[in-house]
Amino acid sequence: MYEMIAFTRGVPAQESFPLERLADCAAYVLRHEGQRLLQYGKAEGYAPLKEWIAHRFRFPADQVLIGQGSLQLLDNLTRMLLKPGDLVFVEQPSYDRSLTIFRRAGARLAGMPLVTGSADLAVLESSSRSGQVPRLVYVIPDFQNPSGGVMSLKTRRALLDLAQEFKFWLVEDNPYHDLRYRGEDLPKLVELAQKQVIHMSSFSKLISPGLRVGFMLLPPELTQAAMRFAEDTYINASYLNQAIVYDFIRRGWLDENLVELKELYRPRLDAILEALQEHFTANADWVRPEGGFFVGLNLTSGYQLPTYEEIRQAGLALSDSHAFFLEGGSHFVRLPFCALTPDEIREGIRRLRNLFTL
Amino acid sequence: MYEMIAFTRGVPAQESFPLERLADCAAYVLRHEGQRLLQYGKAEGYAPLKEWIAHRFRFPADQVLIGQGSLQLLDNLTRMLLKPGDLVFVEQPSYDRSLTIFRRAGARLAGMPLVTGSADLAVLESSSRSGQVPRLVYVIPDFQNPSGGVMSLKTRRALLDLAQEFKFWLVEDNPYHDLRYRGEDLPKLVELAQKQVIHMSSFSKLISPGLRVGFMLLPPELTQAAMRFAEDTYINASYLNQAIVYDFIRRGWLDENLVELKELYRPRLDAILEALQEHFTANADWVRPEGGFFVGLNLTSGYQLPTYEEIRQAGLALSDSHAFFLEGGSHFVRLPFCALTPDEIREGIRRLRNLFTL
Repeated sequence: MYEMIAFTRGVPAQESFPLERLADCAAYVLRHEGQRLLQYGKAEGYAPLKEWIAHRFRFPADQVLIGQGSLQLLDNLTRMLLKPGDLVFVEQPSYDRSLTIFRRAGARLAGMPLVTGSADLAVLESSSRSGQVPRLVYVIPDFQNPSGGVMSLKTRRALLDLAQEFKFWLVEDNPYHDLRYRGEDLPKLVELAQKQVIHMSSFSKLISPGLRVGFMLLPPELTQAAMRFAEDTYINASYLNQAIVYDFIRRGWLDENLVELKELYRPRLDAILEALQEHFTANADWVRPEGGFFVGLNLTSGYQLPTYEEIRQAGLALSDSHAFFLEGGSHFVRLPFCALTPDEIREGIRRLRNLFTL
Repeated sequence: MYEMIAFTRGVPAQESFPLERLADCAAYVLRHEGQRLLQYGKAEGYAPLKEWIAHRFRFPADQVLIGQGSLQLLDNLTRMLLKPGDLVFVEQPSYDRSLTIFRRAGARLAGMPLVTGSADLAVLESSSRSGQVPRLVYVIPDFQNPSGGVMSLKTRRALLDLAQEFKFWLVEDNPYHDLRYRGEDLPKLVELAQKQVIHMSSFSKLISPGLRVGFMLLPPELTQAAMRFAEDTYINASYLNQAIVYDFIRRGWLDENLVELKELYRPRLDAILEALQEHFTANADWVRPEGGFFVGLNLTSGYQLPTYEEIRQAGLALSDSHAFFLEGGSHFVRLPFCALTPDEIREGIRRLRNLFTL
């Protein structure tokens, strides 16, 4: 039997990492352009990868900034843009690490409740109209962390309209977009409008987090300051890692990897949705995602999470739900499913169910 | 003839990078422990490299933090320790990027003039005795950037005594220590006393900057907060790069690389010292370093730098000297010599001499 089933951090399945291929890429790029890769470089990142990203996003290459993962880039951006006391709107729940970044900058945080995957914009709009315009709004539109929700096209457009009317920065954190296991893509915010939007993403979920290669698409008025801020903080992120990613893509292996990841993760998504259907229908609701890493369980009124000690004793590890919320959170369970096998998932959901006296 | 001779950033010689060996290491570590390296990891860094550093420094391994270059770690530390208005003492001149980090945190900076390589501690001591104790003192004791100076043993001990008496944090930035081309090592501050000292260094000058692997040795009371700060900022720096460094060391190649670097750089140091002796004896003084990357020229009263436009027209690139100083700087020239051949160095110093109507 499984000793401990970890529904904790949203990490990729370790067995998905293309070790041999990355070893080939690493050796190849070091032998072929090692002198350049091993020297200091410009903070903006390795040019061929910048150009590939620009082409893929139909975005100007000189507004692409590559860094050591997208969280680092969000921290840079936050330090550039926010003064203590500045207002920031986030989805509720939202990615705990981003909330930490905003809190550390002294931001005043306000929430937009998620309703079947889409942020309710009412408070953002009324706040803005009454003169309390946020400096920044942070959303994860596709397969949101931690809820799994996808923002509707209508909400995307409404949010972009508000950003353009009130001139706040709209940060689109979208690392899961390309991991759709069924159904149809919605356009990214940055595809619908480039003004006011700062798009961030990474190769952590598509190739490997350990490479630490994330990127940001910046509006022209922030580009130079963002490059400078990165340089002042760490000179440049490793070109070696960026060149490995580029070489992997150049050989056509990213597309193959995405096919394999979807084949690996689709049955895991199915397993968790089926298990939840079997065990939680009467006591919780959840968005049924068609991709990404997470299902977020909202426990029906009257149920709430046991202590983390009780959870551990039941052979489960869960993240602290409160960390995703500005307040509350004990009615919520984040269930990342990609790094567990279907059998582990089924057993995990069974254990979770037994924790509640349903 | 050489079109432009660049005495600008202090970078290693590109021809020194061990491409083939690093390619072997990269492929090896990916094939042998890729699953671990390509996953997210703890912010503190890759355990085998932590342990190697700890052994080399006779320092507790659990107080070693590895990150994306030492500048990034200094930025983390600064954000943890400094509030706006906090007093920080630095050598004058000092490393421009570190000054930027301190300024960005809102520090109040005060200078300790360098006298033949050693900081004059008089102002630091009188300030501390009168109740103006700095929060942090930042020094580069070996082959200082930008002056090339080495802090005397007497000053090292006096500085440590002050740190212990007044309980300020003493940050020892020491990436050049192992690049001594002749003469005898002095003990690092962290070897003389571990209390109050935060040691930072990196593999940028010893293997390659492009790997972006730096580290910090932390006192126990800062360790946990520093690990947490790193995690909150970027989750972890790439274990792949750290494993490449460790594998390079494990194979005995770091020691060989240091021998080769010294053989490459020693004639470059000799060339610059001879050329300065020939051209500048009457008009400047400088520390004659026995290692590192830099010679810093102090122009005698009456001489100062021409405009950067005139410098460029003379076929020279120089860093902005003012950036190394809290005030002034036009009497100073930083001359990094490692990335230029002896012929380029001689021609560069000749051009520099011709810029002055001596």
